[in-house]
Amino acid sequence: MIEIPIQIRFSDIDALHHVNNACIQHYYDQGKNAYMQEVLGMKHIWEGYGFIQANTNTNFLIPIYIEDHISVRTRVTRIGTKSVTFYQEIVSADTSNVLSNCTSVLVGFDIPNKKSIVLLPEWTQAIRKHESF
Amino acid sequence: MIEIPIQIRFSDIDALHHVNNACIQHYYDQGKNAYMQEVLGMKHIWEGYGFIQANTNTNFLIPIYIEDHISVRTRVTRIGTKSVTFYQEIVSADTSNVLSNCTSVLVGFDIPNKKSIVLLPEWTQAIRKHESF
Amino acid sequence: MIEIPIQIRFSDIDALHHVNNACIQHYYDQGKNAYMQEVLGMKHIWEGYGFIQANTNTNFLIPIYIEDHISVRTRVTRIGTKSVTFYQEIVSADTSNVLSNCTSVLVGFDIPNKKSIVLLPEWTQAIRKHESF
Amino acid sequence: MIEIPIQIRFSDIDALHHVNNACIQHYYDQGKNAYMQEVLGMKHIWEGYGFIQANTNTNFLIPIYIEDHISVRTRVTRIGTKSVTFYQEIVSADTSNVLSNCTSVLVGFDIPNKKSIVLLPEWTQAIRKHESF
Repeated sequence: MIEIPIQIRFSDIDALHHVNNACIQHYYDQGKNAYMQEVLGMKHIWEGYGFIQANTNTNFLIPIYIEDHISVRTRVTRIGTKSVTFYQEIVSADTSNVLSNCTSVLVGFDIPNKKSIVLLPEWTQAIRKHESF
Repeated sequence: MIEIPIQIRFSDIDALHHVNNACIQHYYDQGKNAYMQEVLGMKHIWEGYGFIQANTNTNFLIPIYIEDHISVRTRVTRIGTKSVTFYQEIVSADTSNVLSNCTSVLVGFDIPNKKSIVLLPEWTQAIRKHESF
Repeated sequence: MIEIPIQIRFSDIDALHHVNNACIQHYYDQGKNAYMQEVLGMKHIWEGYGFIQANTNTNFLIPIYIEDHISVRTRVTRIGTKSVTFYQEIVSADTSNVLSNCTSVLVGFDIPNKKSIVLLPEWTQAIRKHESF
Repeated sequence: MIEIPIQIRFSDIDALHHVNNACIQHYYDQGKNAYMQEVLGMKHIWEGYGFIQANTNTNFLIPIYIEDHISVRTRVTRIGTKSVTFYQEIVSADTSNVLSNCTSVLVGFDIPNKKSIVLLPEWTQAIRKHESF
């Protein structure tokens, strides 16, 4: 599991005075990118092989306010042939409450040729080592 | 069903040269807001009663590129006591392909008092009339 | 002069209930991109030569609200050796008021080699023809 | 002078593979908000008196990339009767280079009544004390 803090921006706050639900997706992306860099050793910008998102399923449990201190926790819960499943939570550092959670499926992708690929062995090994499964 | 065109922004495009997945959520919000204004007669900015998002489940089927002409189609598929379920699609006006679809659950909300409410009868009536169920 | 409508997004609205000032910059980008496509015949995504922004100077005259119908007007007011100056206005289609204006300097750029270039002759010719100077 | 780190988001990166110029404005907002909270003791969301932006003038000196570690430095350089001028820089923590700078004029504002106000004496005192002028 990788946990990183998220810096909430004033422009993330909408007219209802909490973080806009679509902006929360950017937080989850930040978490997945951190995972890919720290666990998979990937670069920030992919040129050869990478991932694209196939599905994301998000629960919004407690509104997030601008004064909250939050982090996003990211782990991989399933490795398939061509895809991985991530489970993520946004957690309040103030209360330890889970404010939102998200499951998403990402597919291995050959970026220049725009087609899905079988996951690279070094990816699956790195994930198994990190997640101990 | 309400269908509105979406204006893709250059900043929606990410380093993979397609619309960033998190930005697609903004398109779905645009569609839901149009539905609420046109079908429910709601204002753009809610002061008394409105909705908050409880869950959103999105499939990303085909990447969206900046030169695409797209629209978002929005309808309500279920009315509960305190919540409604929306089904939405992003459609290419060029190819008629469905590029992404999304199911989301929104809960009636008392905004100043920050608590969920039973759906207003005028909301459920307007939805039933529009959707013919 | 090129004028295009702008689709305001709910997430552009901030806690002060008007369009966030930083989001207005996205509207100006939309206008400049339209100019480059329509007047200069450029692609949406540049691979060889393009422009990068060196300076932008924006006046925020009247707040923009979500129910406003707005457009952005874009013209080039100066052509230099390596740079052009754009003048832009955001106009209310409801009142004809100018809500914001912006002057910006863009520099010709060799994108793969990341260095500034002398403006291409076909660019300056197309601008002079369009602007009649 | 107040300096805060900025967390660059993947979605800030555009098709040119650097931080989109409009996204940089969000970084400056983050800096001004930090100044207002730390120096002026203001809340994150203003309900009575606050500021609105009248002008912003930004130089983009060096492109910002996703792997950069950056911070924004914010100080007030002028106090008027109804407005203040901010000067800000985005600095690379890796190289100490100034990547962008920005001057902006903000006007004191009565938010519920939507009109400009003379700056509150506690604001000007707090700024003078912090900036030593």
